[in-house]
Amino acid sequence: MRVSILGGSGYVGGELIRLLLGHPKVEVTTVTSRKYAGDFVFGQHPNLRGITKLKFVPFDVSQITKNSDLVFTALPHGASLSIIPELLETGLKIIDMSADFRLENPNEYDKWYGWSHSAPDLLKDAVYGLPELHRQKIRNAQLIACPGCMATSTILGLAPLIKPGVIENERIITDVKIGSSGAGNSPTIATHHAERSSGIRPYKPVMHRHIAEIEQELGLILKSDKEFNQSIKVGFSAHAVNIVRGILSTSHVFYDASKEINEKTLFNVYRTAYKNEPFVRLITQKVGIFRLPDPKIIIGTNYCDVGFQIDDHMNRIVVLCALDNLVKGSAGNAVQCMNIMCGFPETAGLEFPGYYPL
Amino acid sequence: MRVSILGGSGYVGGELIRLLLGHPKVEVTTVTSRKYAGDFVFGQHPNLRGITKLKFVPFDVSQITKNSDLVFTALPHGASLSIIPELLETGLKIIDMSADFRLENPNEYDKWYGWSHSAPDLLKDAVYGLPELHRQKIRNAQLIACPGCMATSTILGLAPLIKPGVIENERIITDVKIGSSGAGNSPTIATHHAERSSGIRPYKPVMHRHIAEIEQELGLILKSDKEFNQSIKVGFSAHAVNIVRGILSTSHVFYDASKEINEKTLFNVYRTAYKNEPFVRLITQKVGIFRLPDPKIIIGTNYCDVGFQIDDHMNRIVVLCALDNLVKGSAGNAVQCMNIMCGFPETAGLEFPGYYPL
Amino acid sequence: MRVSILGGSGYVGGELIRLLLGHPKVEVTTVTSRKYAGDFVFGQHPNLRGITKLKFVPFDVSQITKNSDLVFTALPHGASLSIIPELLETGLKIIDMSADFRLENPNEYDKWYGWSHSAPDLLKDAVYGLPELHRQKIRNAQLIACPGCMATSTILGLAPLIKPGVIENERIITDVKIGSSGAGNSPTIATHHAERSSGIRPYKPVMHRHIAEIEQELGLILKSDKEFNQSIKVGFSAHAVNIVRGILSTSHVFYDASKEINEKTLFNVYRTAYKNEPFVRLITQKVGIFRLPDPKIIIGTNYCDVGFQIDDHMNRIVVLCALDNLVKGSAGNAVQCMNIMCGFPETAGLEFPGYYPL
Amino acid sequence: MRVSILGGSGYVGGELIRLLLGHPKVEVTTVTSRKYAGDFVFGQHPNLRGITKLKFVPFDVSQITKNSDLVFTALPHGASLSIIPELLETGLKIIDMSADFRLENPNEYDKWYGWSHSAPDLLKDAVYGLPELHRQKIRNAQLIACPGCMATSTILGLAPLIKPGVIENERIITDVKIGSSGAGNSPTIATHHAERSSGIRPYKPVMHRHIAEIEQELGLILKSDKEFNQSIKVGFSAHAVNIVRGILSTSHVFYDASKEINEKTLFNVYRTAYKNEPFVRLITQKVGIFRLPDPKIIIGTNYCDVGFQIDDHMNRIVVLCALDNLVKGSAGNAVQCMNIMCGFPETAGLEFPGYYPL
Repeated sequence: MRVSILGGSGYVGGELIRLLLGHPKVEVTTVTSRKYAGDFVFGQHPNLRGITKLKFVPFDVSQITKNSDLVFTALPHGASLSIIPELLETGLKIIDMSADFRLENPNEYDKWYGWSHSAPDLLKDAVYGLPELHRQKIRNAQLIACPGCMATSTILGLAPLIKPGVIENERIITDVKIGSSGAGNSPTIATHHAERSSGIRPYKPVMHRHIAEIEQELGLILKSDKEFNQSIKVGFSAHAVNIVRGILSTSHVFYDASKEINEKTLFNVYRTAYKNEPFVRLITQKVGIFRLPDPKIIIGTNYCDVGFQIDDHMNRIVVLCALDNLVKGSAGNAVQCMNIMCGFPETAGLEFPGYYPL
Repeated sequence: MRVSILGGSGYVGGELIRLLLGHPKVEVTTVTSRKYAGDFVFGQHPNLRGITKLKFVPFDVSQITKNSDLVFTALPHGASLSIIPELLETGLKIIDMSADFRLENPNEYDKWYGWSHSAPDLLKDAVYGLPELHRQKIRNAQLIACPGCMATSTILGLAPLIKPGVIENERIITDVKIGSSGAGNSPTIATHHAERSSGIRPYKPVMHRHIAEIEQELGLILKSDKEFNQSIKVGFSAHAVNIVRGILSTSHVFYDASKEINEKTLFNVYRTAYKNEPFVRLITQKVGIFRLPDPKIIIGTNYCDVGFQIDDHMNRIVVLCALDNLVKGSAGNAVQCMNIMCGFPETAGLEFPGYYPL
Repeated sequence: MRVSILGGSGYVGGELIRLLLGHPKVEVTTVTSRKYAGDFVFGQHPNLRGITKLKFVPFDVSQITKNSDLVFTALPHGASLSIIPELLETGLKIIDMSADFRLENPNEYDKWYGWSHSAPDLLKDAVYGLPELHRQKIRNAQLIACPGCMATSTILGLAPLIKPGVIENERIITDVKIGSSGAGNSPTIATHHAERSSGIRPYKPVMHRHIAEIEQELGLILKSDKEFNQSIKVGFSAHAVNIVRGILSTSHVFYDASKEINEKTLFNVYRTAYKNEPFVRLITQKVGIFRLPDPKIIIGTNYCDVGFQIDDHMNRIVVLCALDNLVKGSAGNAVQCMNIMCGFPETAGLEFPGYYPL
Repeated sequence: MRVSILGGSGYVGGELIRLLLGHPKVEVTTVTSRKYAGDFVFGQHPNLRGITKLKFVPFDVSQITKNSDLVFTALPHGASLSIIPELLETGLKIIDMSADFRLENPNEYDKWYGWSHSAPDLLKDAVYGLPELHRQKIRNAQLIACPGCMATSTILGLAPLIKPGVIENERIITDVKIGSSGAGNSPTIATHHAERSSGIRPYKPVMHRHIAEIEQELGLILKSDKEFNQSIKVGFSAHAVNIVRGILSTSHVFYDASKEINEKTLFNVYRTAYKNEPFVRLITQKVGIFRLPDPKIIIGTNYCDVGFQIDDHMNRIVVLCALDNLVKGSAGNAVQCMNIMCGFPETAGLEFPGYYPL
């Protein structure tokens, strides 16, 4: 299958290229970049030296249409919106990495992003590209809106708890720690090494944009279950920590003490939810330094490690969810969506187990 | 004043020696270490090369009594308990860095520490050494029990909110991130560089021992205020991050929407609490990468930086509190207690403003 | 082909397992560990969770013989020596990761290692496992002695310069920087995170053991070239820097100003040496932050990146050579040797291009 | 004494302000910044929150003249040159942190910096501000040109060896490792956290500008000693490593085997050179992780730690020299020069011993 990547010079683009070059069913025909058109791809992605002679080219819709069966768009938020409607008309399958098509309700863009969506009619056709929640819809979609990296780690940690109605859905706290690659590859004072190292910077304690998609997706689970009458509220706070890759989402939720919540019942809840998922691992060791999810262990892979502990001192469940923001948090998850859309084995091109330590 | 340090070979001991060598009113006469007796102090604390010719000596209670007006004990948890009763009888003032005298109720040691306290009668005489809460009692105490480093950052962030009765006291979440020096200087696989770097390790999501003292201290505030009838419950989860020094406590609390909570009222609450505190800084910038507390900014100093943001999406306040675990979190705070006990200027020996960046 | 790994609980063992599990021609039948016998392999190598159900077993020579066509020994230095003679008699092919068979002259063990070699007769049969120098001999060897990680980076940087006789062979300086994984996974104060982070520690400025094999191998090149009458002297100094994986060897050599040394001639020297090497990349960009070798770019891969700059101010060539100490520096290089010995494609199981950034 | 700082928004400026605010003899009257004029100084230097209410002001030569007895210029290289001639005429003492007046020979600017010096007559009046070499001249100077940070670490390591004529002066290799703060506080792709972390980047293997001043200063020592007839050649290569502050210079020099060079004689050479120096410490431990200089130990201080090891395998001396690029490498050293110029105790304001670990 011939694939194009629009906006391939960033970190997400680089991971997409790496994964697709190693994919058994895919040929990367085109990688666009306005800024680096004419340069070798390995000039921006030095790990690809000697691996590919691809060059960046300018965006040209007719070339894309001619050379592609499927297109990934790894453009800045907002830029996808100006290109995707035209691409959709060509009939191409599109997997968009931006936030531009993630929210079903166009009003949410006004609220969380501060701009009005210019193609609200398309929102209902876009499928939120989280295979663990929407595998069936992804199979038949033309347009996939890939989740935000921190949204993925938060949703995958919490989703199994929403279903059985065990927790206070309006009192969910998610405290996220993320590495510097999540900020992209444009240098700013916030990502300057001397400023970003050696600290723990709370950069968005309230009103982070990923809340919109987290509440949307967890809310959909609630709605599907008739016994509930609650909405979802997630108190989400993001911290920049001194690593390059990786996210740990620590969700703190309160459970109803009258329900039977213990390690065994909770383990069953998670096991039921994820036992057939190829990329979600339930971490259940009692001892050792790897007994709980840590992004260090899954960097470079498409895995999402999930674990939990129960705090009966105050009827709290702590859910820990670790992933690589550039793989399961974006490029790897996008390839997983492609595999589903195209009928490839879901793990194709995503088998790398990670190395340790790093 | 002549001062001895019992157990001076660890990181807390090293910081105590550094601070006391620079203190205008203090002479360090004795530093004990079983393991390093006979060695130069700078052999363990290389920053003190050329600064002091002190040597470690073995513990000898008669020597300590003869050469000291005040004693700091920086011994492992449990070891203080076997020495302090004897030292108290000599009439010496004692500032203990361990957890052995922090809890008023001896049963709490059984619950949280898993051992029975051997000198329960002494607990009521020990003063919890947090100047911001107990300055008056510290002034007249013979035995100070210095707080745990993560307890300090949690309590100082939350204490002002407990007073006016604005938050749900049984639904407090504190998500803590701490550097590796908090684990002391004994190598283990958990602190091995190749294992500890590049990750975010949730090492104690529930039932951390510091919860006992946090709930004790915040509970005392509640009790002092008759209008309340609630207890305190803190859901405290600790994460090891890729820095050496520093703690950030992120507390998430829910406020009563019927109360008038906004940036201004909250700022006043904190300002009232801390305006005369020499080491608590309220961080209130609107923009820039330093707008919220970050341990990077206060490393090496006795400052505790406190900030907050209000999340009216779900009636949540996020309180951020940053400090250096080895200074305000232990050795610096202990020196502050000494200054209060001895009538020295409270900031004596603690004026270092920190350097930036690090 | 059935393969066993003796001593599989360390970092090198973990990388061997990872690489061999992904190898198309190999089945890992046995992984031994005295300490962890009975435990799952993924208990020590958390990246292998969900990838393998292998368990560590105790060492048993008859089992190894029965279940293996080839054996990797990743035992501590010295331990290989007590096992390999017996294994050789069974006819098994052996790839040894330790230093025990690297040196041809048994006296060198007395000089550099401080112990006398107990099987000096076997030394002449062992082949130094650096494919770029000894591919032909590796093909036919029964016993491979894999190079030290820092020796590999030093030799691969310098070897092409030795041949044409351009440099002062007795005045070679190699200044090496290495990450903490090179010290293995046994915690010591030297590798304690709080001690090892944030510094640059010169840990072996003179008389590092790898000098013995570097001088042996570069000396062999000299000897093979009749026009020389010099010996090789390498001033090798090792520094521990604040990363987990990776080595950069910076070699400073002096060239004879009467010879025509310029960027073009030198480029040809290196290109001639390495143009057919699957894992040595010559880095020749003029600009950008990737213009010279940096271990960051090759972590996780079997690549060795080589570059150079000429300093005509003092007739110096600076050669830079970067590799991952656990891959091309040990486990990956060992797999490359296996591929050569067994007639597999030389890159089999070693195709991972690395991800970026990390 | 009233002091002004021109260009106070960078990292060197911030350290100057920190040190001068704590200096017992100095009042900081003015800190200029074009970009941040009107803002609080602590807005750029967050460690100074609550320490000073100073604001940045625009540069105004008449104000500077009126309010200052001495001026520090911490301007970008090149900018000092356009201001200092005018300031000199006012009679003010000036301590310049840039490279603009370091080189005695104006032609060297053409060679190493690529521009022609516009005030070559002033060069002979400027004193190279390294107290260990030029204390007497500094005392009487009006204009001090502070050394480059890597030049300081290289010169202080090598200077004692130049004097007695023991080494090959045209074959000196200095391999330098430096943290990211040395690049200043302007974000670029080279200092972007995701790019700068986790690697070892050789960024200037040949022709680094600091060579000019190193060879000038070591050459002056040679010239002063009549028995020599050699010039100095330093092969200097700079590497960016994964720390924020600190420099380690590893110099490799060859000694004449006919001279009696051993640990004792060399120790005497260094001890003779530095025994009265308040900020140079000779590190001579035989064992332990602190046996050799490491920048980790001196960060935040004005110390320069020097050590060495002898390699009689090839008649090499390895000299290790560690300092904090922003303190002894610039701002601290500048304050030391001020103390000498003004007759203050040389250590005034520079007593901070550093904390450990960091």
